[in-house]
Amino acid sequence: MASKLTKRSENYAKWYQELVTGADLAENSPVRGCMVIKPYGYAIWEKVQAELDRQFKATGHQNAYFPLFIPKSYFTREASHVDGFAKECAVVTHYRLKEGPEGEGIVVDENARLEEELIVRPTSETVIWDTFKGWIQSYRDLPLKINQWANVVRWEMRTRLFLRTAEFLWQEGHTAHTSREEAVEEAELMLKLYGDFVEQYMAIPVVRGVKTASERFAGAVETYCIEALMQDGKALQAGTTHFLGQNFAKAFDVTYASKEGQQEYVWATSWGVSTRLMGALIMTHSDDNGLVLPPYLAPHQVVIVPIYRSAEQLEAVRKAIAPLKEELEKAGIPVHLDDRDTHKPGWKFAEYELKGVPIRLAMGPRDLENGTVEMARRDELSKEIVHVTGIAERVEALLAEIQDRLYQRAAERQIERTHQADDWSTFKELIESSAGFVSAHWDGTPETEEAIKNETKATIRCIPLDRKEEAGSCVYSGKPSEGRVLFAKAY
Amino acid sequence: MASKLTKRSENYAKWYQELVTGADLAENSPVRGCMVIKPYGYAIWEKVQAELDRQFKATGHQNAYFPLFIPKSYFTREASHVDGFAKECAVVTHYRLKEGPEGEGIVVDENARLEEELIVRPTSETVIWDTFKGWIQSYRDLPLKINQWANVVRWEMRTRLFLRTAEFLWQEGHTAHTSREEAVEEAELMLKLYGDFVEQYMAIPVVRGVKTASERFAGAVETYCIEALMQDGKALQAGTTHFLGQNFAKAFDVTYASKEGQQEYVWATSWGVSTRLMGALIMTHSDDNGLVLPPYLAPHQVVIVPIYRSAEQLEAVRKAIAPLKEELEKAGIPVHLDDRDTHKPGWKFAEYELKGVPIRLAMGPRDLENGTVEMARRDELSKEIVHVTGIAERVEALLAEIQDRLYQRAAERQIERTHQADDWSTFKELIESSAGFVSAHWDGTPETEEAIKNETKATIRCIPLDRKEEAGSCVYSGKPSEGRVLFAKAY
Repeated sequence: MASKLTKRSENYAKWYQELVTGADLAENSPVRGCMVIKPYGYAIWEKVQAELDRQFKATGHQNAYFPLFIPKSYFTREASHVDGFAKECAVVTHYRLKEGPEGEGIVVDENARLEEELIVRPTSETVIWDTFKGWIQSYRDLPLKINQWANVVRWEMRTRLFLRTAEFLWQEGHTAHTSREEAVEEAELMLKLYGDFVEQYMAIPVVRGVKTASERFAGAVETYCIEALMQDGKALQAGTTHFLGQNFAKAFDVTYASKEGQQEYVWATSWGVSTRLMGALIMTHSDDNGLVLPPYLAPHQVVIVPIYRSAEQLEAVRKAIAPLKEELEKAGIPVHLDDRDTHKPGWKFAEYELKGVPIRLAMGPRDLENGTVEMARRDELSKEIVHVTGIAERVEALLAEIQDRLYQRAAERQIERTHQADDWSTFKELIESSAGFVSAHWDGTPETEEAIKNETKATIRCIPLDRKEEAGSCVYSGKPSEGRVLFAKAY
Repeated sequence: MASKLTKRSENYAKWYQELVTGADLAENSPVRGCMVIKPYGYAIWEKVQAELDRQFKATGHQNAYFPLFIPKSYFTREASHVDGFAKECAVVTHYRLKEGPEGEGIVVDENARLEEELIVRPTSETVIWDTFKGWIQSYRDLPLKINQWANVVRWEMRTRLFLRTAEFLWQEGHTAHTSREEAVEEAELMLKLYGDFVEQYMAIPVVRGVKTASERFAGAVETYCIEALMQDGKALQAGTTHFLGQNFAKAFDVTYASKEGQQEYVWATSWGVSTRLMGALIMTHSDDNGLVLPPYLAPHQVVIVPIYRSAEQLEAVRKAIAPLKEELEKAGIPVHLDDRDTHKPGWKFAEYELKGVPIRLAMGPRDLENGTVEMARRDELSKEIVHVTGIAERVEALLAEIQDRLYQRAAERQIERTHQADDWSTFKELIESSAGFVSAHWDGTPETEEAIKNETKATIRCIPLDRKEEAGSCVYSGKPSEGRVLFAKAY
């Protein structure tokens, strides 16, 4: 660890960037907008992946893999889909390089121009629906529930590590059903799965809702989302699921023979979460000392640091640590022992604080005499001396407490920072001060939504699924409204 | 299952294609040369991945993720590297589409041309070594042992599912070391890991060796490989590891401060296996009835099929199957019960034969009376009636036997099909008849290697690591040779 982080209160964006690179999560690459996910960051992503993958399979989904490239003609087949993605896609036009004729080095070989350009997938509906056409003949082939773990590319102009990158990693689920009801049920089921995962494993409270028409996925009939609130009062869309109706089935002519022998178009969903979740994780829990990780997602839940002056002391401490480490490992707790003598204990303490290891155990000569160990928790930066007897149980209990505490803390913050605004000046004031979610009446028109966005940069994050029917008047136009929606500035 | 496969003896290539699509492993996509990996094929690949990933981590490697795109200027920095890949790479030149001005639909926006073209990675040495430059300062940062699971693109003109596709999935390991010895040791260690994995898990015997200079990876000082022999007598390169010397360290200026305070270039390796392994798996074990899977890689090791005439019988059989299935699952055996009444038992038998499920259990009314079950093994297409008592142990024993038998069978075939040729006409005859590996003396020159390739299409698969020093004369030129090398026609 080189130096202290910029404080959140001084420059939140700078704090974030320093934390992400300093804690070895990710860094910018030489390719504009593309990131390198560093080993420690990738280890956290693998934990996210593993649990989601388990849950997808447990709910009857199968993994498959579809091509990186999409022929331009496929990409354009669903009209609103291409509208949504055409402005930000990487296009492959050639398939060969050659030595330049005038010694200028390697150049693109103009003789190797593709007949049809290929789009690097920004999402895979088109190529997947073209494939589904071959997989679906009869109602017996349905439902078809497929997931893919993949990289995708969207040519974003302003990028930030994890939050918005030109290339990112994600999973995209694509399902086909015999009825509208079943497809809607799937989109809602996956929203529940996402929401529960993010709350239970990532300790990030979310609001579940539906998007307004203007914020819908390109090609969807309905987009469901989970929205989280970051420490700086900005919202972050953490996952979306889409009910696609029969749009893609019609664009790719995917029909099935029903039980009654009729040819019918199938009904579709798609849904995805991405490495953006890493950004949400970092911004929800971390502090001015670095990353704070919920135990479920920590590559190491415990780090053990020996304290010593002499080589003899180190040897003695190492001996006492060995059975302690073994006890923790037997209990299934991922432990890292850092007994390098190239770095001082103080340096290590700062390093593991920066990296957000939930529990730090430190043991020195005095502990040997007393049969104790110093147990520090990262989330509250507090510590206590405990007996080594029964250490595994103690650690397990503390891990559970930390997981719970992180969620509670974030949930309390979200409640505190969800405000009601019933008049325009209050609304503007709240949005300008990045106060968090603003719950306000809206007249339901895209024009008002657009006007509010232009004046304040706030967007409608969602229409909460659990909102009350409540007559009111729009905070902007004064026209009648059926209920409140959540506004915020967003990542 | 629609219809019977073409026989291997009639048309091996057609048999392969029909098997791969028929057994739901993969299919061609609308994108030239790119495949769709279907759920059943992907489930097998996930098993390959999981075990390799476990072994990589157990040997001290960490996963990370690097960008899909490589700027042209980086790609060209290591001269022999770009020579090797320039002719087959996908090039991104634009980042936006737009509505064509004359109503011709969506076109590439010429105003959105990239200043520098991006290459879709065919392999990631260049972008990774540029990144390593920032990660390596001192000997304390070494060895650095990184692996990436990713998709890569090589613009192959003739493609075949799994064996050679424009896009494929793989892992690529990239490591940096303080000494030549340590880097060579790493390349050899990973070769051992690959060889042991392929033999123990995939039941494919391999020859371990080094490549000749002309078959080396572009940018390597030494390329190690494992070579397998397919049923049609052609060889398949199943994995490679490379000692890269200091070539990439010099091209990307990656130095470290040694313990003595000197700035030194680091030493490097890279290594990879890909979805090509799926092709090797299929072609090693399968027969005219379809896929044959080694139990370690079978998504379902056991399938249970109920036999019945009436609904009452089905109910009775289902009841008897339930505890049997539970017993198997408790023993950790992945079991699939196919009790669909939309398909006849005979259809199911053929289906699971085609899909290579190692063991099929069938239970009918007569079995209920006798307390028995029919147990069939896929590899030998044999079956026996066994008592249900102790079924888990029986199945476990048979799975172990099948795993072992598949390896033995392939190993025997490899021995039978490895011939010595000491004169040119024998050599030519053996190669022309695709007799397998031909072990012959070679004078060590690239000219002879090239001449043999031009005359016979045979390449030197490797110089076996365990070859005997044995003076002889080259089978082609008659010049002196220090030992035999292995020739074959290859995929």
